[in-house]
Amino acid sequence: MLLVECRLLGERPEMSDDRKLGKLFIVGLGPGDLEHLTFEAKEVLIRSDVIVGYKTYIELVRELIADKQVISTGMGEEVERAAKAVSLAVAGKTVSLVSSGDPGIYGMAGLVFELLHSRDYPGAAEVKLQVVSGVPALCTAAALLGAPLMHDFACISLSDRLTSWQVVASRLGMAAEGDFVIVLYNPRSSERQHQLAEARKILLQHRSGSTPVGIVDSAFREGQKVTITDLERMLDFDVGMTSTIVVGNSTTFTFDQWMVTPRGYGAKYALGSET
Amino acid sequence: MLLVECRLLGERPEMSDDRKLGKLFIVGLGPGDLEHLTFEAKEVLIRSDVIVGYKTYIELVRELIADKQVISTGMGEEVERAAKAVSLAVAGKTVSLVSSGDPGIYGMAGLVFELLHSRDYPGAAEVKLQVVSGVPALCTAAALLGAPLMHDFACISLSDRLTSWQVVASRLGMAAEGDFVIVLYNPRSSERQHQLAEARKILLQHRSGSTPVGIVDSAFREGQKVTITDLERMLDFDVGMTSTIVVGNSTTFTFDQWMVTPRGYGAKYALGSET
Repeated sequence: MLLVECRLLGERPEMSDDRKLGKLFIVGLGPGDLEHLTFEAKEVLIRSDVIVGYKTYIELVRELIADKQVISTGMGEEVERAAKAVSLAVAGKTVSLVSSGDPGIYGMAGLVFELLHSRDYPGAAEVKLQVVSGVPALCTAAALLGAPLMHDFACISLSDRLTSWQVVASRLGMAAEGDFVIVLYNPRSSERQHQLAEARKILLQHRSGSTPVGIVDSAFREGQKVTITDLERMLDFDVGMTSTIVVGNSTTFTFDQWMVTPRGYGAKYALGSET
Repeated sequence: MLLVECRLLGERPEMSDDRKLGKLFIVGLGPGDLEHLTFEAKEVLIRSDVIVGYKTYIELVRELIADKQVISTGMGEEVERAAKAVSLAVAGKTVSLVSSGDPGIYGMAGLVFELLHSRDYPGAAEVKLQVVSGVPALCTAAALLGAPLMHDFACISLSDRLTSWQVVASRLGMAAEGDFVIVLYNPRSSERQHQLAEARKILLQHRSGSTPVGIVDSAFREGQKVTITDLERMLDFDVGMTSTIVVGNSTTFTFDQWMVTPRGYGAKYALGSET
């Protein structure tokens, strides 16, 4: 990475595009179907020498990267994947480290920066590093549900693998008290079963059981499922690793098959009358 | 829209693709350069008869829509734009209503649903309605800053045009107390000058003045500027309508030109040592 003398002061300098230097792109794939990839993400994948990623995500873009060196590893091996990607880039390769959704939201971007910050990689200062955004799961879920995120929202991961449950529980309480729409990432896995029920209990201390809840599974992948239910009944539905849950705020409503949080136009304009 | 009998129970049925019926796509353009558009968004724009949008956003995609009927209006005319888009779709047209970023985050999606909910549009039940996600400003800003959103975050609009300042202030307090990373949308406009200073004051009740703050202006557009500063000094920098601000949580740090919120790998794994 280039050191910036004026990092508190202003514009980021143009990075070098010298072909001899390594490049590391941390690329968001969006929900996973190629239709939701951005043009930039595709371009970056095509320009890369090596693609590194979790095997499920590699499969999603397999047809774009047929001629590439691919390094795919399993769940729980994020640190190894990120370290491998950094090492290859330091060695002069153009590397794409792929992440589903947006790499900056519970994705691989942070880990790469954490590694660069804590390990000494000789030559790392010369590597061009770039995060390539993807459509995050919170937007994909919202789009399939209608428009539940139209007002202030909080995004909380229920995984207590890297964060204590006490912190998660406290944030759930604050977000509920602040009347935020709440997006729950990582609501449940085979090893974490009870967090969702505990989260629901905390939310019910601040919100009515009839608060709309949207559950989106495998958005734009095989087996996609969109469910609109409420806080009272949300535990009656299947929730797993590929689920994103959106809990409405006090004004969220449902109609037809949609879940909508009003922005507040209704209070300011007479929406019901065509003026 | 199709009425769903089992809207609380399960899968959304496949919508009709009958060409005679109107279609309304609410399309996210991402930050605005065509590189950050998704393939789906481009496809939908190309298939549309009419494009409706705020004039600045229309200009961003002008080269894709040269042969289309374009209805562009000014700021503050969102209700008219949304109503026009709905009317055209009800009349059988294929319409794209465009929004910058993601249409489901402070964008046009909610307004369309609010209109459909409050007005009686005969024939609206037959219209195919779809939200097409775009990369939201929060992700674009995060990507340019490094990885500030790697832990739980709250997204708050400082606009009190449609929301009382009391609600905004309360949410700022809750988000700060819950140690969320905080993304501020609409931090300042020509008519709204004081909100950002008030927000900062609230945040400083819970967070140190040295908390990293990232300010991203006009991401991926002409005049892009990326600034990393802190809560103490954040008011020293230009902030306007096209700015997105990210305020770190208690663990956010800066190094080189980056702003990073660790996910927590450092506590679980010895990142500094290559194991």
